[in-house]
Amino acid sequence: MRIGVLGTGEVGNRLATKLASLGHEVKMGSRTANNPKAVEWAKANGPKASAGTFADAAKFGELVFNCTSGAVSLEALKMAGAANLGGKVLVDVSNPLDFSKGMPPTLTVCNTDSVGEQIQRAFPSVKVVKTLNTVANTLMVNPKMVPGQHDVFVCGNDAKAKSTVAGILKSFGWQDPIDLGDITGSRGVEMILPLWIRLMMTYQNPAFNFKIAR
Amino acid sequence: MRIGVLGTGEVGNRLATKLASLGHEVKMGSRTANNPKAVEWAKANGPKASAGTFADAAKFGELVFNCTSGAVSLEALKMAGAANLGGKVLVDVSNPLDFSKGMPPTLTVCNTDSVGEQIQRAFPSVKVVKTLNTVANTLMVNPKMVPGQHDVFVCGNDAKAKSTVAGILKSFGWQDPIDLGDITGSRGVEMILPLWIRLMMTYQNPAFNFKIAR
Repeated sequence: MRIGVLGTGEVGNRLATKLASLGHEVKMGSRTANNPKAVEWAKANGPKASAGTFADAAKFGELVFNCTSGAVSLEALKMAGAANLGGKVLVDVSNPLDFSKGMPPTLTVCNTDSVGEQIQRAFPSVKVVKTLNTVANTLMVNPKMVPGQHDVFVCGNDAKAKSTVAGILKSFGWQDPIDLGDITGSRGVEMILPLWIRLMMTYQNPAFNFKIAR
Repeated sequence: MRIGVLGTGEVGNRLATKLASLGHEVKMGSRTANNPKAVEWAKANGPKASAGTFADAAKFGELVFNCTSGAVSLEALKMAGAANLGGKVLVDVSNPLDFSKGMPPTLTVCNTDSVGEQIQRAFPSVKVVKTLNTVANTLMVNPKMVPGQHDVFVCGNDAKAKSTVAGILKSFGWQDPIDLGDITGSRGVEMILPLWIRLMMTYQNPAFNFKIAR
């Protein structure tokens, strides 16, 4: 599949690298056409890997990952362009973390709204699927990093889009993501970040995950 | 132990009943001295069970459970009285849920503060320990209701108070609660309620719990 990855940080790099290793054609997008991190990533990941602007990556992808910080995702997606994203599946893995006042971060949006919902409202034709934001970026692409069975969540308004994303998750090693229903489920998964961060501070290690015991 | 339980709702009833069944002397407190639910509970739970006002229950208890709704807990605790609570362990199991706009509820406080922290600030000499707010009231006193190993959290500023509460949790069947550190950890455990509620709506059943896989 042709996949656009928006964002050149640790999350974007990790996901783009995994997707390229699975044989997808991946274009990493950033604010500028020649972002050194994106160019370096493309050089290191074979002939199917390329770099460009947010708009280039969004246009290129049949499916697009939003790996920008949740606090600036709307702005990044506007740069990507509604026409380039229109009708496509957008996998939103972002968290609206505000580190400006130090640790622990607060959320820039929560309780009555979420980034996932904001994106869906701003781009009505895009099929937003929220997932993977509840695990460390190393774990996103390697669930076996944490022993035993544990969970990821998906939510979004389009069942077929969620099914497509479940297929990608499966290729990463995630079986049976928990479907939380429509995109308003983003609120719940974004709001567990404060507990996730607290646990990370407690364990001094991001190699953990939530499992829903039933 | 003499224990005061503030609140006559499902949570207060469940915890008070379990505590009485374990041999504790329990006084259930409410806004008025003769709350029918508290009086009925006391009648049904043996000679060591009694009812009274919030102030009566707080004064009676060597340890006090806050089982009032988080949205009104500060008000209830003011009625209980700082002098009656002073120096004691207060087990806060509340959640600041606002159902006034229908389902799902929002939180009356979150992100930069929490009920646990509000209570600790309002009653500085009280040893607030936040716990059990992340599980259904039926599960609070019967962890085996959900198969396998799964977790509860504790946080609070006083290590000895947390140890006392861990002992009570153990008597309920909970082994090794996860210690999230000081009372600011309340923020994380209160903010997972939106996900908890979403899962409850998905499963149509509150018999589930979070496990932290590592």
